[in-house]
Amino acid sequence: MDAKALRKLLEEVRGGTLTPDDAVSRLRHFSFEDLGFAKIDHHRKLRTGMPEVIFSRGKTPQQVAGIFRKLAAKGGNVLATRADEEHFRAVKRVLRKAEYRELGQAIILRQDDTVYGKGKIAVISAGTSDIPVAEEAVVTAEIMGNDVSHLYDVGVAGIHRLLAHQTILTEARVLIVCAGMEGALPSVVGGLVGVPVIAVPTSVGYGAAFQGLAALLGMLNSCASNVSVVNIDNGFGAGYVASLINRL
Amino acid sequence: MDAKALRKLLEEVRGGTLTPDDAVSRLRHFSFEDLGFAKIDHHRKLRTGMPEVIFSRGKTPQQVAGIFRKLAAKGGNVLATRADEEHFRAVKRVLRKAEYRELGQAIILRQDDTVYGKGKIAVISAGTSDIPVAEEAVVTAEIMGNDVSHLYDVGVAGIHRLLAHQTILTEARVLIVCAGMEGALPSVVGGLVGVPVIAVPTSVGYGAAFQGLAALLGMLNSCASNVSVVNIDNGFGAGYVASLINRL
Amino acid sequence: MDAKALRKLLEEVRGGTLTPDDAVSRLRHFSFEDLGFAKIDHHRKLRTGMPEVIFSRGKTPQQVAGIFRKLAAKGGNVLATRADEEHFRAVKRVLRKAEYRELGQAIILRQDDTVYGKGKIAVISAGTSDIPVAEEAVVTAEIMGNDVSHLYDVGVAGIHRLLAHQTILTEARVLIVCAGMEGALPSVVGGLVGVPVIAVPTSVGYGAAFQGLAALLGMLNSCASNVSVVNIDNGFGAGYVASLINRL
Amino acid sequence: MDAKALRKLLEEVRGGTLTPDDAVSRLRHFSFEDLGFAKIDHHRKLRTGMPEVIFSRGKTPQQVAGIFRKLAAKGGNVLATRADEEHFRAVKRVLRKAEYRELGQAIILRQDDTVYGKGKIAVISAGTSDIPVAEEAVVTAEIMGNDVSHLYDVGVAGIHRLLAHQTILTEARVLIVCAGMEGALPSVVGGLVGVPVIAVPTSVGYGAAFQGLAALLGMLNSCASNVSVVNIDNGFGAGYVASLINRL
Amino acid sequence: MDAKALRKLLEEVRGGTLTPDDAVSRLRHFSFEDLGFAKIDHHRKLRTGMPEVIFSRGKTPQQVAGIFRKLAAKGGNVLATRADEEHFRAVKRVLRKAEYRELGQAIILRQDDTVYGKGKIAVISAGTSDIPVAEEAVVTAEIMGNDVSHLYDVGVAGIHRLLAHQTILTEARVLIVCAGMEGALPSVVGGLVGVPVIAVPTSVGYGAAFQGLAALLGMLNSCASNVSVVNIDNGFGAGYVASLINRL
Amino acid sequence: MDAKALRKLLEEVRGGTLTPDDAVSRLRHFSFEDLGFAKIDHHRKLRTGMPEVIFSRGKTPQQVAGIFRKLAAKGGNVLATRADEEHFRAVKRVLRKAEYRELGQAIILRQDDTVYGKGKIAVISAGTSDIPVAEEAVVTAEIMGNDVSHLYDVGVAGIHRLLAHQTILTEARVLIVCAGMEGALPSVVGGLVGVPVIAVPTSVGYGAAFQGLAALLGMLNSCASNVSVVNIDNGFGAGYVASLINRL
Amino acid sequence: MDAKALRKLLEEVRGGTLTPDDAVSRLRHFSFEDLGFAKIDHHRKLRTGMPEVIFSRGKTPQQVAGIFRKLAAKGGNVLATRADEEHFRAVKRVLRKAEYRELGQAIILRQDDTVYGKGKIAVISAGTSDIPVAEEAVVTAEIMGNDVSHLYDVGVAGIHRLLAHQTILTEARVLIVCAGMEGALPSVVGGLVGVPVIAVPTSVGYGAAFQGLAALLGMLNSCASNVSVVNIDNGFGAGYVASLINRL
Amino acid sequence: MDAKALRKLLEEVRGGTLTPDDAVSRLRHFSFEDLGFAKIDHHRKLRTGMPEVIFSRGKTPQQVAGIFRKLAAKGGNVLATRADEEHFRAVKRVLRKAEYRELGQAIILRQDDTVYGKGKIAVISAGTSDIPVAEEAVVTAEIMGNDVSHLYDVGVAGIHRLLAHQTILTEARVLIVCAGMEGALPSVVGGLVGVPVIAVPTSVGYGAAFQGLAALLGMLNSCASNVSVVNIDNGFGAGYVASLINRL
Repeated sequence: MDAKALRKLLEEVRGGTLTPDDAVSRLRHFSFEDLGFAKIDHHRKLRTGMPEVIFSRGKTPQQVAGIFRKLAAKGGNVLATRADEEHFRAVKRVLRKAEYRELGQAIILRQDDTVYGKGKIAVISAGTSDIPVAEEAVVTAEIMGNDVSHLYDVGVAGIHRLLAHQTILTEARVLIVCAGMEGALPSVVGGLVGVPVIAVPTSVGYGAAFQGLAALLGMLNSCASNVSVVNIDNGFGAGYVASLINRL
Repeated sequence: MDAKALRKLLEEVRGGTLTPDDAVSRLRHFSFEDLGFAKIDHHRKLRTGMPEVIFSRGKTPQQVAGIFRKLAAKGGNVLATRADEEHFRAVKRVLRKAEYRELGQAIILRQDDTVYGKGKIAVISAGTSDIPVAEEAVVTAEIMGNDVSHLYDVGVAGIHRLLAHQTILTEARVLIVCAGMEGALPSVVGGLVGVPVIAVPTSVGYGAAFQGLAALLGMLNSCASNVSVVNIDNGFGAGYVASLINRL
Repeated sequence: MDAKALRKLLEEVRGGTLTPDDAVSRLRHFSFEDLGFAKIDHHRKLRTGMPEVIFSRGKTPQQVAGIFRKLAAKGGNVLATRADEEHFRAVKRVLRKAEYRELGQAIILRQDDTVYGKGKIAVISAGTSDIPVAEEAVVTAEIMGNDVSHLYDVGVAGIHRLLAHQTILTEARVLIVCAGMEGALPSVVGGLVGVPVIAVPTSVGYGAAFQGLAALLGMLNSCASNVSVVNIDNGFGAGYVASLINRL
Repeated sequence: MDAKALRKLLEEVRGGTLTPDDAVSRLRHFSFEDLGFAKIDHHRKLRTGMPEVIFSRGKTPQQVAGIFRKLAAKGGNVLATRADEEHFRAVKRVLRKAEYRELGQAIILRQDDTVYGKGKIAVISAGTSDIPVAEEAVVTAEIMGNDVSHLYDVGVAGIHRLLAHQTILTEARVLIVCAGMEGALPSVVGGLVGVPVIAVPTSVGYGAAFQGLAALLGMLNSCASNVSVVNIDNGFGAGYVASLINRL
Repeated sequence: MDAKALRKLLEEVRGGTLTPDDAVSRLRHFSFEDLGFAKIDHHRKLRTGMPEVIFSRGKTPQQVAGIFRKLAAKGGNVLATRADEEHFRAVKRVLRKAEYRELGQAIILRQDDTVYGKGKIAVISAGTSDIPVAEEAVVTAEIMGNDVSHLYDVGVAGIHRLLAHQTILTEARVLIVCAGMEGALPSVVGGLVGVPVIAVPTSVGYGAAFQGLAALLGMLNSCASNVSVVNIDNGFGAGYVASLINRL
Repeated sequence: MDAKALRKLLEEVRGGTLTPDDAVSRLRHFSFEDLGFAKIDHHRKLRTGMPEVIFSRGKTPQQVAGIFRKLAAKGGNVLATRADEEHFRAVKRVLRKAEYRELGQAIILRQDDTVYGKGKIAVISAGTSDIPVAEEAVVTAEIMGNDVSHLYDVGVAGIHRLLAHQTILTEARVLIVCAGMEGALPSVVGGLVGVPVIAVPTSVGYGAAFQGLAALLGMLNSCASNVSVVNIDNGFGAGYVASLINRL
Repeated sequence: MDAKALRKLLEEVRGGTLTPDDAVSRLRHFSFEDLGFAKIDHHRKLRTGMPEVIFSRGKTPQQVAGIFRKLAAKGGNVLATRADEEHFRAVKRVLRKAEYRELGQAIILRQDDTVYGKGKIAVISAGTSDIPVAEEAVVTAEIMGNDVSHLYDVGVAGIHRLLAHQTILTEARVLIVCAGMEGALPSVVGGLVGVPVIAVPTSVGYGAAFQGLAALLGMLNSCASNVSVVNIDNGFGAGYVASLINRL
Repeated sequence: MDAKALRKLLEEVRGGTLTPDDAVSRLRHFSFEDLGFAKIDHHRKLRTGMPEVIFSRGKTPQQVAGIFRKLAAKGGNVLATRADEEHFRAVKRVLRKAEYRELGQAIILRQDDTVYGKGKIAVISAGTSDIPVAEEAVVTAEIMGNDVSHLYDVGVAGIHRLLAHQTILTEARVLIVCAGMEGALPSVVGGLVGVPVIAVPTSVGYGAAFQGLAALLGMLNSCASNVSVVNIDNGFGAGYVASLINRL
């Protein structure tokens, strides 16, 4: 039941063809969703420009292409994460404008080029193996309308390389820091800036890295107070949170 | 806003002092709760006779007594779990009819003696150390209006003792099985009956028992298909679930 | 030794061809199983209509087909879980009436259409990736003679979609709720109904989902008291327990 | 060596009393800190109004009081977290204006009442036992110059209570959500708002809650994309991150 | 129902006062235990001389004393493990002959001095902190009628000390090896002897010892094939298993 | 240096061609092994008939065949565990008498048919999936000269099937019990016999079985005192330990 | 900016073409790295002869070959770890002098044959399966200019074999000890020598070895005080640390 | 049996009072230790100046004092770690020269002031709470005859403070780095120096720090290749290893 249906019911009440008692009875059976449209208004502004998103892993190329086309029809940007080249070829066949961002394993469709972010988002990664996760964050932040800079391969064991590029850090309004192994980079970066840092542990490493657990625990225990953490390898989530912050 | 308020609004619509448009606007700001009373009706029958419950651990005797009195005023049964004697003394002072079930560390107040359960609930425990958890289940099931039998200290290493009391098992409509250490009892009991078994891992044991983790994992992997599991030491939860099943 | 054999022995005692002493000696060597037939009677009613079940994973198509045919010969329903299309083709060749339920990866044979369940079982799942587990529960409950409804893709991050379909929840006598990732859905559903909820953690997710561990722990710690839990991805177990409850 | 010292060295070079070679040698021994003063300027604006913070647990009342007085002398706000009443009495003796926020176990000193936050920060907690962590977040956000609202005891098993107070959620620019046990609340809240949500797992619960691990894993796997997570019981960290976001 | 009762029933059948049909009916209701006496005969020899055992931790001195006296009345040896001096004083008051083995925290009562073990049991421990566990094994093996030798403080980091006492190792028919920390001793000992080694991980250590987990895992992965393992700190279990082996 | 060499040295001393001082010097450089022959004597009897063993997994067929031939040349029995058919074909080519025990994935060569075991070893397994591990134990015990009986598929959820075959249990001098999932069978079996039980957790199961961890923890916490445990899936180790016990 | 650039700037100051104020401004924008050359001097001696290193796993043969050639151009030794034969073939094509160390899965290029190590490094491994990790350590230490001896397959269950080769242990200035399963070897070796021991847990084993976790925990809890530990399977790290120590 | 005894035996052989055969027999029963004295010589130089060490926790003051006096009698330095003031008072009573190092919770007795270390050992700690562990390392290194410098409270979130004190880092021959929480400091320090770094995880932190596990995993996964790790809170072990290295 949408607003129109509700109004119709109220008209009937006004017209006397429905008693208030009967109206109460019928309203009792309305689902919350039906009456809940007002709520969506509250966030309309914030939600504008949000991309439609598909998690491709575990889906066939055909499934991804099908969903992609349907979402593209809504008119906004579309993002398919964890997509391989086969996924892309299937999407490309149905949507010629779709692009593949290989490093970030993402398929994107740009239909809205508005810049929603007020400042810059910087994406930092500790090692070259962390780049796929970092790039997923970059693509996500870009498709959500942000100006994104990045700085890769600046691990904490070579701290001077990071310090040499401090400008990228200090110019950002929000930072995303990706690191595997000991996951120490967010703490160091967090100490160099005065803005929020979103930390992304990656599953990079072997042995006692335990598929990202070591990095995850490290980041949760960061001695820098401006750090919050998302799931292991969740570049998308970091890009999404950073974009929301950058819109404020 | 309850039904009365809603009716008033509809009367205004009928009376023409409120246009349908304005009514829609005002309805948009109603909280879901306000309109949700119908939903509660669906379960009225099921919810009748449910006790009010307090988790006492971490609360002072005064806090428990205060909450207890307030809940008692609603007229139904009241149950305070994980309560020690100090908690009880404080409750006793404000509610003379309150009783202490020492083994199950529970304070109860019986104001409703209706039998809601259709059959018998049997509570089985593997060792004497599991009894406090088993008794919490017993007290919970009793206060919720069930006929409860129990069978304690029938560990799987002495399987004949369990088999010697099969009648208790086969007479029950639902069973609760509490065990620490290797947590094997629910599987054995599950294989002897054709009704649902609620398994409660207990934190009894030492070393590789890891505070109930061994028993929990054992129960989740039960080779008996009629077993489902609640949290470690959660006698209350088991009693509650069993009571709901026994009302069906 | 069955009842007949036992009676024969007693006849010999009565006839004097066997002394009581010799009878005791011979009885001493009877296995428990031999004398245990009475026990099975207790559950005859409950056990009627139970399907024969095969866990297919790790078995060759030929093995599954062989067991399937043997179980089918008993005359009741047969269910093979975790079966792929190759398993099905092998079964189909020996039993033309066998059907494949692709979504739930189950092979079924219906030879008994009796409705054993007294009410409706509702199966709810949080995301589309949880559907295989949910469908295993659906197939299990159906083959055990229940009226099953389902509601898929109602994750807690879009709570209104769930609330919009409350009727399915409130009409059920037992509910099965499947969720991966944070496993929060059973708590929310548990709070909306007054009947037992069987929670099934799924291995859906990545990183800190740890193959279903996060969901499992979440469900074991549910703040809704009517929730009990089965093993990760154990749709069959949930369907089985729910069916037992629904027969009561 | 600050700018003045550097200039002095350059003057010497210009004056010819120091050869370029010798200057290079001396510069080689400058620490990075000495030359790094520019960097601090970048964040001067962001850092203004940041409180000085003491982690009291494990420190004697005397130690806390000593550090507190020293930090207070800098003129800004001071916050001592995880402080008990003994800590407070010691601080009170040396700083009469210090206040104790008992629920949040925090000692505060307000010397700067500027409002730095642009919007409202809402702090939500699932159960009454989560309140100490929630209050630590509240105190932190307040002392950092924010308008803070809160909503306590709105667990996911009673979703309507949360929905009934949606205004608090939708009015906030940033949200902090604290929950123990299954830690599901951030996902639900995340789905209801379009702004960043900082999730704080608490160590509330028992058994398979594993001192907050269940809640932590649940939050890291949140199906709501706007959720990021801080350490277990880290109300301070959440308040700090939320404050930084609210200043942007 | 014991043999006598069974014979009585059979006599009635012979006498014609009970029909075979009625006899079958009555036999159906006999518990398994009642008919199971034959089974116990099989192990009579093995079970002779087994002590009665009480796990004292978590029991009050009065409870331990009560159980102890009751078990002592059976005429065999009695062992109370994990007992402190208070437990002992309570037992001593009711049984003057009871002795306290302080190192092994065990109360014993010797009423049967038969030697049941065919050879020697050697108990080896890695460090002085492992002695309480080792002594629990010693006391258990002694009270079960074995000749027990021991060798303490022969950690693997001082391998020559162990080698210097090889006679103790090579003279034993079964060995018990207790070790905390890295738990390496059973592997080394296992390699030096050709008889079964029972390994007992102890909770000795700190940090990454994780209360005996490191030692437990080490022992389970022993490269010596003659090693089997019991629970952390389970000196009693090791002594019991070794005694059973030594009787063979 | 063996006994002969040592004697030669001593003869030289006696003959005066070597001074005692020089003899001491030379003895100082002898390795321990050289002088350790006495030690080996101690176990000569026990070690007789021990098979040579190869762990095949991770080795190429050629490597296994090579080692196998070399070990066969020593004249005793040879056992290659975790071997697939390719391994076997390679071995067969170089040793025609080698046999493949498919169920237990073992290649054996019998060159010594002596019976070393004094009694019977019984191998019990809980489910059909545990059979490969159980068979590895059977093969190991057989090749080490034991009379081995087995009883498969007697899970604890069907306890009567186990009880129906108690003779196998009670006739054994040592038992090996293999179980995955909840690993409860050793406790039940342990309670039915008075001899040592070697428990083998298997990696059978899914979800919260965690590749055998659940079964392992269950067995370590067994409430039956005659149970000791070997590594997950370590059928060989269990067979080896049981054989050593059976020789005593 | 290197020393030359800095001198040029200072010359300008001396020459008066740059005011001290402008020089300060320009220096402020120098990156730390630029001014950091002094620091490198401190370690020049230590760093001489350090190989360039590539972690090959996860990189394509082309990528490895490309990086390898670039690093080779610097003139020092080059080491590519975790490289397979395909990696090698690609490198060989661009650098004919490159060699493949198959056992250690390493590609090396020797362009500097200086011996930097002052003593001998001994690499010890417990079983044949640990050899790949041990060889990675050997190759690393050799390419870094050390005299390396090794001793393989000396597990703790055959302690005499280790003792028979004590000379290798006692002649070393630093030792690397690799072991999987229970990881006990470093403790035994540590007790036999008076120099630093670098322990490398390997992922060798199955079941409760948990991919090297058991060995790792064992080594961290070593009762030998001269043992420190690197990551699971990290032969390279051990070789690197040992080489640094051997240069001191 | 020492060299003298051996010579005596050989003299008897030479004198003809002992036949070579009888000598072989007697030598067979010598323990390895007896003949192993040569081995100890190898390390005599390295072992000189090693302190005698007592781990005090879990020992009574009287026990510690007793052992301390006995060890002091050997003439070298003595160190009691994890000692509280009561331990010290007991030691002081029997050894007036004993000193208490409160920060490091260590009792020391200096009887040998020789400097054995060739260079400086630097001990670095991340936060003030890590100081007790750092001081344990300092005391250990000092009592073993090293020149020790330290640098405390230089966490990675304030990287400039660390960089400002680089001299301490670059002057050290070996470094010990202690850190709790995310344990990132060793990686940063490791990247700044070219010498071995011993990392000590501390149990400092809360929540997901899991008593030092997060720091431990972080350090094991360090991206700096010159880092090796000791057990959580094991300041003594780090000091010991560093001292051994510094003697080389």
